Amino acid sequence: MRLSVVGAGAVGTSVVELAGEYGHDVVAVADSSTAAVDESGLDTDAVLERKRTQGTVGDGAPRDALDADYDALVEATPTTLGDAEPGFSHVKRALERDRHVVLANKGPVAERYDEIRAFEADSAGTVLFEAAVGGAIPILSTIDDLNGQVTAARGVLNGTANFILSRMAAEGLDYEHVLAEAQDLGVAEADPTFDVEGIDAALKCVILANVLYEDTYTLADATVEGIADLPGSALELAAEGGRTIRLIGEVVDGEVRVGPRLVPENGTLAVSGTLNIVQLETKNAGRLNISGRGAGGPETASAVLADIGRLPLK
Amino acid sequence: MRLSVVGAGAVGTSVVELAGEYGHDVVAVADSSTAAVDESGLDTDAVLERKRTQGTVGDGAPRDALDADYDALVEATPTTLGDAEPGFSHVKRALERDRHVVLANKGPVAERYDEIRAFEADSAGTVLFEAAVGGAIPILSTIDDLNGQVTAARGVLNGTANFILSRMAAEGLDYEHVLAEAQDLGVAEADPTFDVEGIDAALKCVILANVLYEDTYTLADATVEGIADLPGSALELAAEGGRTIRLIGEVVDGEVRVGPRLVPENGTLAVSGTLNIVQLETKNAGRLNISGRGAGGPETASAVLADIGRLPLK
Repeated sequence: MRLSVVGAGAVGTSVVELAGEYGHDVVAVADSSTAAVDESGLDTDAVLERKRTQGTVGDGAPRDALDADYDALVEATPTTLGDAEPGFSHVKRALERDRHVVLANKGPVAERYDEIRAFEADSAGTVLFEAAVGGAIPILSTIDDLNGQVTAARGVLNGTANFILSRMAAEGLDYEHVLAEAQDLGVAEADPTFDVEGIDAALKCVILANVLYEDTYTLADATVEGIADLPGSALELAAEGGRTIRLIGEVVDGEVRVGPRLVPENGTLAVSGTLNIVQLETKNAGRLNISGRGAGGPETASAVLADIGRLPLK
Repeated sequence: MRLSVVGAGAVGTSVVELAGEYGHDVVAVADSSTAAVDESGLDTDAVLERKRTQGTVGDGAPRDALDADYDALVEATPTTLGDAEPGFSHVKRALERDRHVVLANKGPVAERYDEIRAFEADSAGTVLFEAAVGGAIPILSTIDDLNGQVTAARGVLNGTANFILSRMAAEGLDYEHVLAEAQDLGVAEADPTFDVEGIDAALKCVILANVLYEDTYTLADATVEGIADLPGSALELAAEGGRTIRLIGEVVDGEVRVGPRLVPENGTLAVSGTLNIVQLETKNAGRLNISGRGAGGPETASAVLADIGRLPLK
C-alpha cells in the first residue's frame, strides 16, 4: 500500500523506517511544520536523515501529506483530549476521500468514536487502531478474531506507571525518587501527568469499551485514579501479604475504571518494568492473557504495520 | 457457513453445540460409526442428545458427512501419526471438492503439511488449524497477523504434563502419584503416552515450524524428551535455586525441540495447572506472551469457530 504518515515522533518515524520491510511505500510524511511528498515513493532514508539533522521532514506544508494520493493514512500525531484535534480532522478528511486510516493516536477513537464510525460507514475506507491500545500487543485484532466472544478486559496498560510501581516495590523507594529516575532513563516524560494520573491507561480502556460494547464511551465516562499519591508504605504493606500494587485498567460490565489495585506478587497481572498485559474474559474460551511491549517506536510501528496488512485491498 | 463436523469427541460435539451462537449451521455430523445429515440444518440439540444417550449421532454412514453439501469441513477426529489417517483423506477430499477445512486434528498438518498445502493450492478451499496448537489461545492467527515478523516460538503446550509438573513441585510428590491423581481428575488419559512423552507438545511445535519456516517438518524432525523419567528430587533441586521445571517446546533457528527445562519459579513460562503459554519472538515488536486454556471441548471449539470466521466467503 502507499502510505501517508502524519506525525513524525517515535512512532511515525519508525513506521517510515519499517514500511518497506512490510512491502509498503511511503508517499508522504508530515511533521508539525513541514511535509515531504513523492507519489512515486519517498526516499525514506533521506527523509529520516533530514528529520534527524534539520528537525524537519521536508519543504512542503503539513497539509500536503493529507492531500497526497495515498491508500492509507497513518495518524501518529500526539494524543489530545476533548475534540481530539488535529487528529480527528485528519481521519475525517481521509475517510471523506475514501482512504483507509490506521491510528496510533488514541484521541479520535477514545473521545469521538461514534463520529469516526459514522464517517467510516459513509466511506470506502476502513479505520483500524491496534497501535492505540497496548503498543506491540495484538489486543484489538484478538478481540476481533474472537467474534464477539470477549466480555471483559483488564490489565496493565501504561508502562511508565508500571515501571515506577515495580521499582518502588523492588527497591523500597518513594514515588518522587523513582519518577526522577524514570525521567532520567527516558521511561517517563518531563511532564508525566498522562501516565501517572492514569489518563493514558484510561484512554486505552475507553477504546476497549468502544470496541467491546454497543454504547460509546469517552474519557468522561471513566473513573480514573493515578499513582502519584501512593505512599511507599502502601507497597511495603502489600508485600507483607504476598501482594503488590499495579495500576490496573478494567472494562467490565459496561464500566471503565483505572486505579491502583492489589494483585498477587507473582501473579499474572504483576508484570514488571515497562511491560503491559491484558486479560480478556471470553464466553467459551476462558481467560486469555497477552503481554508484551506496550510502547516504543518500532514496537508501536509494528502494530501500525500489522493493521496496514489487515486493510481490505481496494 | 454450513458446517460438516467429522469427529464427535469433546471438541466436535462442542463445535456442534456452539456453532449456532456464532451464526453458523451444522448440516452434517459424523462419529466413528455413524452420521447425521440434514442439508437444511440439523437439529443440533437432538443430535447431541442422541450421542449422549445412544452413543451415536445418527443412522447414516460416516462417509455421508464427507459427501454432504457443506461450506467448511471441521476435522476433529483423533490425532494420528505417520500417514495421519483418516484425517488426511478427509482434508484431501474436502479440498478436491473446493471446500474449506478447519482442523482441530494435529496429524495432517504436523505429518503431511506439504501435501495439505499442495492440495490447498489447487483448491478454491482454504485450510486453517488454530485449534491444533494451544487450544483456545490464538497463536497461529497472531503469527499470521504479524506478517512474517515472528522469528521463533517457545512455550508450554501440553496441559497434562504441566499439571503433573506443577503438582510435583507444589506438593513434593512423585511422578507416578501425581499421574494417578491427574487420571482420577480426568486431566490425564488412561494412556498418557502422548502427553507425558512430549509427543503432543512436539506435534504442536512441528505445526508452528511448518508455519514459521520455509522447510516442511514432521514429528521425525523433532528432538523430543518427556517427563516420565523425571525424579521428584530434580524439582526439589530446582526449587532451591528459585527455579522449577516445565516441559518446554521450542521452535528456534529451524530446530524443533521438546523437553523438561529449568525456568524461573515465578517467571512467565512457569504457568501452573493445565494452562498453556506461548512466547513469540518478533523482529520489531520484542517478545509477545500469550497464555490461556490449551485444551478442553468448548475452548478448542472456540478456536475452531474463530477459524470459521476467518475463512473467505465464496
